Amino acid sequence: MKSTSILILSLSILLFSISCSSQEELKDKLSLMPWPKEIKATGSKLFIDSNFTININKKSHRVHNNAISFLRNLTNKTGVFIEKGFPSYDKGKATLNIKYKNEVSLSINVDESYILSIKNNGVELIASTDVGVIRGLSTLLQLVQNDSSNYFFEGLMIKDNPRFKWRGLMIDVSRHFQPVNVIKRNLDAMAFMKMNVFHWHLSDDQGFRIESKVYPKLHQLASDGQYYSHEQIKEIVSYANMLGIRVIPEIDIPGHATAILTAYPKLGSKDNYEYKLQRYAGVFDPTLNPINPEVYTFIDKLFNEVSSLFPDEYFHIGGDENEGKHWDENVKIDEFKRKNKFKDNHDLQTYFTIKVEKILNKYGKKLVGWDEIMTPNMPRSAIIHSWRGKNEGFKNGTLFPAVKKGFKAILSNDYYIDRMFSVDHYYLCDPIGNFNLNEEEENRILGGEVTMWGELVTPLTIDSRIWPRTAAIAERFWSLKNVNDIENMRKRLKVISYELERIGTTHLKNIDVILRNISNNQEINSLKILSKIAEPLKMYERNKGGTEYKSFSPFSLFADACNSDAEDAYEFKKVLNLYKKSKNNYEDILYFLRKWQKGYIEFEKLNKSSILQELQSHYSVLYNVSQKLEKVIQKQTFSKKELEELIISIDKLEIPFADVEIVIIKELKQLANHIYNKLSS
Amino acid sequence: MKSTSILILSLSILLFSISCSSQEELKDKLSLMPWPKEIKATGSKLFIDSNFTININKKSHRVHNNAISFLRNLTNKTGVFIEKGFPSYDKGKATLNIKYKNEVSLSINVDESYILSIKNNGVELIASTDVGVIRGLSTLLQLVQNDSSNYFFEGLMIKDNPRFKWRGLMIDVSRHFQPVNVIKRNLDAMAFMKMNVFHWHLSDDQGFRIESKVYPKLHQLASDGQYYSHEQIKEIVSYANMLGIRVIPEIDIPGHATAILTAYPKLGSKDNYEYKLQRYAGVFDPTLNPINPEVYTFIDKLFNEVSSLFPDEYFHIGGDENEGKHWDENVKIDEFKRKNKFKDNHDLQTYFTIKVEKILNKYGKKLVGWDEIMTPNMPRSAIIHSWRGKNEGFKNGTLFPAVKKGFKAILSNDYYIDRMFSVDHYYLCDPIGNFNLNEEEENRILGGEVTMWGELVTPLTIDSRIWPRTAAIAERFWSLKNVNDIENMRKRLKVISYELERIGTTHLKNIDVILRNISNNQEINSLKILSKIAEPLKMYERNKGGTEYKSFSPFSLFADACNSDAEDAYEFKKVLNLYKKSKNNYEDILYFLRKWQKGYIEFEKLNKSSILQELQSHYSVLYNVSQKLEKVIQKQTFSKKELEELIISIDKLEIPFADVEIVIIKELKQLANHIYNKLSS
Repeated sequence: MKSTSILILSLSILLFSISCSSQEELKDKLSLMPWPKEIKATGSKLFIDSNFTININKKSHRVHNNAISFLRNLTNKTGVFIEKGFPSYDKGKATLNIKYKNEVSLSINVDESYILSIKNNGVELIASTDVGVIRGLSTLLQLVQNDSSNYFFEGLMIKDNPRFKWRGLMIDVSRHFQPVNVIKRNLDAMAFMKMNVFHWHLSDDQGFRIESKVYPKLHQLASDGQYYSHEQIKEIVSYANMLGIRVIPEIDIPGHATAILTAYPKLGSKDNYEYKLQRYAGVFDPTLNPINPEVYTFIDKLFNEVSSLFPDEYFHIGGDENEGKHWDENVKIDEFKRKNKFKDNHDLQTYFTIKVEKILNKYGKKLVGWDEIMTPNMPRSAIIHSWRGKNEGFKNGTLFPAVKKGFKAILSNDYYIDRMFSVDHYYLCDPIGNFNLNEEEENRILGGEVTMWGELVTPLTIDSRIWPRTAAIAERFWSLKNVNDIENMRKRLKVISYELERIGTTHLKNIDVILRNISNNQEINSLKILSKIAEPLKMYERNKGGTEYKSFSPFSLFADACNSDAEDAYEFKKVLNLYKKSKNNYEDILYFLRKWQKGYIEFEKLNKSSILQELQSHYSVLYNVSQKLEKVIQKQTFSKKELEELIISIDKLEIPFADVEIVIIKELKQLANHIYNKLSS
Repeated sequence: MKSTSILILSLSILLFSISCSSQEELKDKLSLMPWPKEIKATGSKLFIDSNFTININKKSHRVHNNAISFLRNLTNKTGVFIEKGFPSYDKGKATLNIKYKNEVSLSINVDESYILSIKNNGVELIASTDVGVIRGLSTLLQLVQNDSSNYFFEGLMIKDNPRFKWRGLMIDVSRHFQPVNVIKRNLDAMAFMKMNVFHWHLSDDQGFRIESKVYPKLHQLASDGQYYSHEQIKEIVSYANMLGIRVIPEIDIPGHATAILTAYPKLGSKDNYEYKLQRYAGVFDPTLNPINPEVYTFIDKLFNEVSSLFPDEYFHIGGDENEGKHWDENVKIDEFKRKNKFKDNHDLQTYFTIKVEKILNKYGKKLVGWDEIMTPNMPRSAIIHSWRGKNEGFKNGTLFPAVKKGFKAILSNDYYIDRMFSVDHYYLCDPIGNFNLNEEEENRILGGEVTMWGELVTPLTIDSRIWPRTAAIAERFWSLKNVNDIENMRKRLKVISYELERIGTTHLKNIDVILRNISNNQEINSLKILSKIAEPLKMYERNKGGTEYKSFSPFSLFADACNSDAEDAYEFKKVLNLYKKSKNNYEDILYFLRKWQKGYIEFEKLNKSSILQELQSHYSVLYNVSQKLEKVIQKQTFSKKELEELIISIDKLEIPFADVEIVIIKELKQLANHIYNKLSS
């Protein structure tokens, strides 16, 4: 080996380690999400001033519009009066130079990679497709920084592409209808997080949400007047397309069919049954009749109509939670099963699904279904949408079995955000995980989908259930598996959460609206303080048996203003951990104890409505506990009996109230014990 | 006179005086706006519980939908789990009983009156039309009250109808496009305030905002891709119709025509002129050529198309601010004028407008135009839209001349909310005022329109310019002339402002978004404190000569987070007035002085961006002034020299900065002088 080679080798090692250490520094400095595959600081800066320009190598609707939108965002984010409001084409060097090869139709195999090179004299954004350009622009927008006199982009070299090709968000618009603007603002947020599939759950027991020209009773009788017209659907599909987001419709059959059967009862498995739109949450019996030829005519015509509205090659047919009760109660269906030697309803459903798949194929569509469709005879062309896991009795979930059996599959089980777990939980769930898969099997895992089921969300609150948690899951879908530092994710997510609001979501804005509502427009500070340590009940505890809330129940209660990652609870935990390590940060602890006392004193002064009454008892216990803890920290005496009494009080706080729970119970006990032990030792 | 008659008379007087005094009490208690014509407390209460039901005497789309929307609002406002989510029809007595005679098509003469009678056993809402029902429901929703255990409606007897039949809001979507959802949420807010005309300014120099199938270049070349499709227009018209709001389109001709001429330059008054979409604000020269027959063919076909989208009988043709410069520069036009003995361009424009009116008549439409169309020869069938007043050299405005001359007219001059005056100013402007009109003339005053010109507003900020001020103007249009107590209006408006947010406007929500934006997502409390005593520059000072801001300049600056009625400034004035009357409320004064000091100390800690730098100097002066004032209040010594120095500091605060001005200058000086005088006496 010659010395020059050695030199080069050493230099490479040196560069690698620089880039390694700078990776960590960058993660501390940049609020970038999802984190890119490769990123390196180059040590220079590009200043953003009024001369900022964009040049694009050729025109495409998608790149043109996203470039304009980038400019508007940039000018509003920085306050810089950018002189040129529109991109130029092949006018030579600009501040931001966009080059791409192909304008593509969206499909599962679109190349979304891009290279972003930021130097002190300009930015190059290079991509193979126009969709890659959009992904790069969303990265660049997140890279705006400032010092006291300038806005700038840090000099960086980024090479990026997604780990999974299917990065979705499902929104259920059946349980509660979500108007066009709610869908659009969520599409904007998705694009900001580089998500690329919007799965639209359009039909369920509680409503059929598309206008149908072939079966008009569907929207006339089964939507309460809340549905999307064909034009609105086209508008949304085109809006999503502009953002590089595919739209997959779901018409859930043969179960979850109450809405369809409310409109066309003859298609049901029970004769003379009064089908009525469902107002509760749950799993219900109304099911299409798989032995009625008219059912297939219906599906054929309807799916033809729906297919024409959605250009994507995939079509979701649901297929979940058909318990077959109405099938069992129908003698003719029973006969049919025996005649065809179907051993159970699963066989019958497979028979049904295969027929549906053939219909879809006629219209150029591939079938996606929830994991119940995964029966031995199901053709491997279907995509399995895995939703069942431990909780439903599937220890290893259904994703791995699916890909082992040769199906392509997408994962949702771990991304049921309506279960209201903390973002940490979802973030750490990896679609591939530690299962032992060969490469072929691994490739069959297309990605994942966040599922926003709609039982407890309205336009007022849906964003607060989706965001910011979904941003972290989007990172899970896009970034490398080893990007999994919770603390760092949380830090970046806080900024991303604000940025999402700037773009148009309402997850933060509407908290004030709800709190003002329950206080009848009084000062809401005290309610905000309480909401920051309270979280809505998890799993489906808030709506026990699906019967506490109807679709038209109130959804602007205290629980609706709380979210699954109570802000102060998280901070208090951090502060407490330091305190337990004797970091002498008792002032930080006192800050919270005083905040809660002050909160209660303000709360006391409010005119109480019945809604506020529900918070009274817990808030007053919190006040007493905080006061006691402050005293013992200050006074340095704390008897065993006092400790025991305090623990009894804290236990009272643990009882759920107003559909929320205080989430600092453990921490308050730890703090009490810690102080006691310290004073006793 | 018999003694019974005397008794009856005495009773009547007694009843009248009870109802008089209770009027004032009611105004203090109820946050109702616009205030109804007649309202009387009946002393009972109707409790709102889960058994709340609605029965309607007969079905109409409008009443049905508004009743459902009322129920959803009621359940969300009260947190009561109302069991019946839908109204019944002729099922006998319900909690709320709605009865109306006619389902009507919207027009200028629709009867909007209603009677609302709330007793302890139920509510009767009686109206002649389904539109009257909507107005009554919006009153009832504002009447929800609560004590510590219940929500209830106060027992009341209300007889109500509007003073003016034309109560409008104009939104200019040309200078900045406003998407469908912005229009819809503003329609919801309008309906809540019983407004009934949405005037849609669709075309101007900066953009043509409707899809045209007959002249497709209009939206293709003159909208930057930002326009409403036919389907979207129909959707908005139908949405407005459901709320009892008429929609009047405006296509502004012959001036304000740059967008039209960008698409079809041959229709312009100058040959070989390069028409380009305007990016600045102002009055520009491009004008349709009134002697070119193709222009009338164009207007005919386009107005035919537009007319088919808007069912209302009125059509606004603009007609304003044509300075005729391009007419004067065209030799053929000059010849034409001479040939036809037109003495000036006004005659020529009248010639043009009369031809346009004939075209409109063909399509069953009546013409509305800005007051420039009011020339001697103009047919009295045209409605004059009065926009010019003192500021434009019309001492008495143009409304009175119009009705004196026999025109019907609507007033906007006093309702230019983009001039950014305080709500008090607009509230006190009465369409009829004190002018000497006979009954016939008075009847020609149809009402008024709030004008939201779009140069400085985007979807992020437009609501904060419209609301809550427009709610007070809506009261001016609906309620009796003598409802004009500023203090009481302000009190009710504060609650209405929150209620509007609950319904969907974003005038409060987006303040945080903007402040987080300019602070780069730091804590915004200090910025909020400053924003509450700062108001955007008034009149058109913010955009001097229309050239400081382009249409794509940043509109998320500090000034965009401030509004025209700075909250703390208003409160501080009240507190100061008491203080000057020696009410011994110096603690209230200190509260503000300390708040501003604390604000600055927090502000100091922020990492400064260039935007925040612009606030630095004023904020630090405010800190010094507040500190000094606090000291002199506390220390009880204050020399003449110190006073003079303080006044010099306060003067510094008066200089506008960051497009805002501090609006407590006078008050700070008064405070300083008052303290000085007190201590010297």
